[in-house]
Amino acid sequence: MAFSERIDRLKSSLIREILAAAQRPEVMSFAGGLPAAAMLPHAEWADMPVDMGQYGMSEGEPALREAIAAEARERGVPCSAEQVLIVSGSQQTLDLAAKLFIDPGTEVLLEAPTYLAALQAFQLFGADCLAVPQEDDGPQLQALRERLAHHRPAFAYLIPTFQNPSGVRYSEEKRDAVAALLDEFDVTLIEDEPYRELVFDDELARPIAGRSRSASWIYTGTVSKTLMPGLRVGYLIATPDLFPYLLRLKQSADLHTNRVGQWQALQWLGSERYREHLAELRSFYRLRRDAMQAALSEHFADLAQWQLPQGGLFFWLKLNQPVDTRTLLEPALAEDVVFMPGEPFFMNPDCNLGYLRLNFSHVAPERLAEGIRRLAAVVRQATTAEAA
Amino acid sequence: MAFSERIDRLKSSLIREILAAAQRPEVMSFAGGLPAAAMLPHAEWADMPVDMGQYGMSEGEPALREAIAAEARERGVPCSAEQVLIVSGSQQTLDLAAKLFIDPGTEVLLEAPTYLAALQAFQLFGADCLAVPQEDDGPQLQALRERLAHHRPAFAYLIPTFQNPSGVRYSEEKRDAVAALLDEFDVTLIEDEPYRELVFDDELARPIAGRSRSASWIYTGTVSKTLMPGLRVGYLIATPDLFPYLLRLKQSADLHTNRVGQWQALQWLGSERYREHLAELRSFYRLRRDAMQAALSEHFADLAQWQLPQGGLFFWLKLNQPVDTRTLLEPALAEDVVFMPGEPFFMNPDCNLGYLRLNFSHVAPERLAEGIRRLAAVVRQATTAEAA
Repeated sequence: MAFSERIDRLKSSLIREILAAAQRPEVMSFAGGLPAAAMLPHAEWADMPVDMGQYGMSEGEPALREAIAAEARERGVPCSAEQVLIVSGSQQTLDLAAKLFIDPGTEVLLEAPTYLAALQAFQLFGADCLAVPQEDDGPQLQALRERLAHHRPAFAYLIPTFQNPSGVRYSEEKRDAVAALLDEFDVTLIEDEPYRELVFDDELARPIAGRSRSASWIYTGTVSKTLMPGLRVGYLIATPDLFPYLLRLKQSADLHTNRVGQWQALQWLGSERYREHLAELRSFYRLRRDAMQAALSEHFADLAQWQLPQGGLFFWLKLNQPVDTRTLLEPALAEDVVFMPGEPFFMNPDCNLGYLRLNFSHVAPERLAEGIRRLAAVVRQATTAEAA
Repeated sequence: MAFSERIDRLKSSLIREILAAAQRPEVMSFAGGLPAAAMLPHAEWADMPVDMGQYGMSEGEPALREAIAAEARERGVPCSAEQVLIVSGSQQTLDLAAKLFIDPGTEVLLEAPTYLAALQAFQLFGADCLAVPQEDDGPQLQALRERLAHHRPAFAYLIPTFQNPSGVRYSEEKRDAVAALLDEFDVTLIEDEPYRELVFDDELARPIAGRSRSASWIYTGTVSKTLMPGLRVGYLIATPDLFPYLLRLKQSADLHTNRVGQWQALQWLGSERYREHLAELRSFYRLRRDAMQAALSEHFADLAQWQLPQGGLFFWLKLNQPVDTRTLLEPALAEDVVFMPGEPFFMNPDCNLGYLRLNFSHVAPERLAEGIRRLAAVVRQATTAEAA
């Protein structure tokens, strides 16, 4: 069978395979990024008009585009509804952007670590990925300038707010500096903000897209982390030079996003009920974050280092003794625990051993401590064996 | 701005542009393939479980995959649920297949004419399209054999049942012959059957995928033409050598298909209520087809030739005097009528002038005759001017 050359670069989704392996109810999963089942809101469908069953516009429902543009402007991203494209979850933004920009050998710039599924989507199309190391307050600026000065990346893909996997939120200074550098070198920004609303303190920084003066940008978000991922409703907002191409690529990909999900999302966005739901969600996840922080402090203090995440869904652990955490999956699963190895979040997994991503939203607090205890035992066993 | 080289080949969806231009309520549109608004079924949502809001499996809902496999087996396509992938409308099958098979310069084989959006999706990825002329009972077999013998197409994309745009249904003999030829030359079949259930007589032929002995195949369908296109729920069924790649490409494209639409589709598939709905749909569309046949006979008898379609949603007219029908769009729109020019359904539009595709499902019968009368006047005017 003769496949396209890109199929040589097609990787399976490790995380989806782990989730599939972890279907047994006794398994405690820290692997995925699933919203807590208990926090899925009750949705009313009775009032949905019958014509939501008909074909819709490729751009998305006009009222939803308006609501998303209004919300984005409130966040400090200047835009009109005409710049909003509703997509089938923000993963589709990555697919459309890859199609728009990437030929085999096209350079793109990413944080290291970065979102695994973005890395895979870009690599599928043949991207040559340039890494900028992530620090606690955002990318290492000197490295960013160096990459921009010596390369011509088609875009910089960044997750400035509660980055997946690192949990990092860029500082105000770094946001300004990144925007200025992308303007200076005229490099398009792709800014991915799925976790923005899952924030546990009062600080929230304006998106980088709102700080750009001249560079083109695509800003993407989703209702998956705050409402219902099963709707598959995300969006992108793009500068007018990019929008028409993204729209045509959307048409070619799947004509338009499902309208029933769009209608449901519209019932929530901007409403008082949604604000209340978000407030509940934040309290709920803050408790789970705190429970995991307590369990980690008890069981991982001598094994790893980490920051307390101020938002998002993940802890990012750096083991004191860097073992290949992919080798820990099997022994962990034998203890009915799964987690996400950190290596696949890097362009060069084998040069970045010893990280773990732990989701705190999914496992109930009363089981969480036991899961962390078991995971620590697996890590201790492996690192002791390594040291011996 | 440096885009990927594929963007040079990115065309806008002519049909979506026409539909956008035809939003005025007074416009009679024969352009799209929209189900009649009156036949969108009333859907119940009250019983949908809350967990349909959660992330789902990339493969799709297990029960829906089972139902689709059972239906396909009944049609004579041997398969198991493990071979079924739920997609975001069958347009996504084309995107996934393009990714799987097509590099710039990859040869693919298509009917001429063929489905416009398939042609565009394959050309976007750089396909070199080989055309096999369509006859009233299916492809010209000698041309098909010749293309297969002298080329190595990655796949043959065929729409054997009420082809879009030609309305052709392959004969039993041609179905067998095509299956045998693809087996002989070991070329993968992509069989697209969105219109299968919209049939106005008692004849229904087994899909070509069910006649293959050795060639690989992807069989794709949708609920868009029979239930609700707004759900964006389609499916593909693939031979086991292709399935794992298509699944990973699906993950990379949008993680999974929306679950609320999948749940709704499952409430219908295989049910008595769905059988009744299909029967009503067929009667309803048969009436509209007959109304259009009557109007065409009255106004187009001296202008064009056509077959009475035994299923699907379209008449395909060949003008006696071949003018470029794209030039008729503007004068038609001035008369509040739109139609679909035939040229874009061919790889070489400029060598295939003088075809029109007319949808009969959308315009109400009482307005239809007037629309056809106006359209005939526009055609007559243009062909008279041409002759003058």
